[in-house]
Amino acid sequence: MVESLVKGIKKQDLKSISKAITFVENNSKENSLILSKLYPLKKNPHRIGITGPPGAGKSTITNLLIKYFRRINKKVAVILVDPTSPYSNGAVLGDRIRMFNHYNDENVFIRSIATRGSKGGLAENIDEIADIFSGAKFDIILFETVGVGQVEVDVVEQVDTVILTLVPESGDDIQMMKAGVVEIADIFVINKSDRADANKLYASIKNVLNLDNSTGNGWVPSIIKTIATEDKGISELVEILLNHDSYIKSQKNISTSKISKRYISKVEKILAKNMMDKFWSETRKDLLNAELSKTINERISPFNFATKLLEK
Amino acid sequence: MVESLVKGIKKQDLKSISKAITFVENNSKENSLILSKLYPLKKNPHRIGITGPPGAGKSTITNLLIKYFRRINKKVAVILVDPTSPYSNGAVLGDRIRMFNHYNDENVFIRSIATRGSKGGLAENIDEIADIFSGAKFDIILFETVGVGQVEVDVVEQVDTVILTLVPESGDDIQMMKAGVVEIADIFVINKSDRADANKLYASIKNVLNLDNSTGNGWVPSIIKTIATEDKGISELVEILLNHDSYIKSQKNISTSKISKRYISKVEKILAKNMMDKFWSETRKDLLNAELSKTINERISPFNFATKLLEK
Repeated sequence: MVESLVKGIKKQDLKSISKAITFVENNSKENSLILSKLYPLKKNPHRIGITGPPGAGKSTITNLLIKYFRRINKKVAVILVDPTSPYSNGAVLGDRIRMFNHYNDENVFIRSIATRGSKGGLAENIDEIADIFSGAKFDIILFETVGVGQVEVDVVEQVDTVILTLVPESGDDIQMMKAGVVEIADIFVINKSDRADANKLYASIKNVLNLDNSTGNGWVPSIIKTIATEDKGISELVEILLNHDSYIKSQKNISTSKISKRYISKVEKILAKNMMDKFWSETRKDLLNAELSKTINERISPFNFATKLLEK
Repeated sequence: MVESLVKGIKKQDLKSISKAITFVENNSKENSLILSKLYPLKKNPHRIGITGPPGAGKSTITNLLIKYFRRINKKVAVILVDPTSPYSNGAVLGDRIRMFNHYNDENVFIRSIATRGSKGGLAENIDEIADIFSGAKFDIILFETVGVGQVEVDVVEQVDTVILTLVPESGDDIQMMKAGVVEIADIFVINKSDRADANKLYASIKNVLNLDNSTGNGWVPSIIKTIATEDKGISELVEILLNHDSYIKSQKNISTSKISKRYISKVEKILAKNMMDKFWSETRKDLLNAELSKTINERISPFNFATKLLEK
């Protein structure tokens, strides 16, 4: 079953891809099997994250980005990251999917993932989903978030390029600039830029960027004005995205770069899994079960128990 | 510095505790040092999570719980988990803290943590914060969330007891019951229960609980009606909390229980850290640096690189 799924993914079969993503979402056992068979592949799709406050036009921009990327023959996957609460019913999401016009294009894959069920953590899920699309030889993966707290952070750290979408009114919130947004965005989009205060926002972002010396890794964040509903400025945005992708992929070392950090953490994850599989001998498993058969108050501390296992 | 901080925590010095939490939030190096020195301690404070939709009265209930727990001489820590977005300025939070009346009680510690900056993941942060309070011999740790997606999941998995706070109007949203809430809540609080439909909500929760056979671990979730603003029903809630704590702590094994899962994952984390420290010899570090000095397209896949390291 896993074999045929992996084969399906490599053949870019959309059903197989979808099934594999469901495995990731549910943190199934099949998951790591599939991924370990995909890992040897080395295609590096451009991972793009689109974030920003509600109403900033993220979906409209995503929709246009799909169009432009298809024109230059790129295979595009779109993942809508939905911070579903157990108290909401996820209906909003169906609407979000329906708004896209790319149903019949087999080189476009659109899918939502809920953050609610993400057992292994959203960041890991995003990374694994990217691996699946890598296996299916996609060129672009767009992660669109609805911009709520933790969800953003996880997305931001797992993508190559972060687009922060704002509207002119966002400028009122000066606090925004102080809250670490500058460090995370590679591209600032001022959407609905025909509205008043677009230039003011432009100037204040510019100002904050000039003050900031923290990045120093060579990429100066772009600021671009768009009117997505009129398809204005999006082709320029695509240009910048392509530039940023080349920039990222030509970058060497810099252990602080997101891409190197992801590489290291993936290597460590594979190593840890390998070591743990070897470590858990029957004797050690028995010791663990014996400890677990005690009540929490009877157990020795996790630290002492780990030490005991290591001494075996 | 770490030594004196650990000493301070054990002496229940609030400033030391606060500083240690900041280390956790920032994922500092000091962090794991402090924790490894605290780990041998074995006190298991009762971790309680309070979640539910905005406006359900969570803060009022938290405030009263502090009062009741203090009466029976329990040391109480309250952590307000704030899903700060880079686009909000966190001002709301200050207000949330000010609303508590326990400033001058040194056996009450109230603090907010932002989920935005949580580099190691919120779940891990929550667990580590609980360890700090464990070291400081607190009896109760209350985590209050504002109920947004991922934040809840992380909190739910890291606490012993989950209180889901609802209001009578919540009953309208039948979907809620289908969305997995039942599996996560140990105690349902119907607050503002003098309003219409309180009994209807009670009946529908009861109904869903009766249909559910999934838990089967012995604890039948309680449903309790409260009017927090009039201090009605909270002493009963405290009773149930104390019962659930005893129940949890007397439970043996059941590898599916949250508390055992947490124990295992903490043991594995300590083991992994230990093994990794040994694994990364100078030779292997050099190999990694050599790989990182290539561009992303030149690098071999993480899987192949891990295999290469293991063969060394």
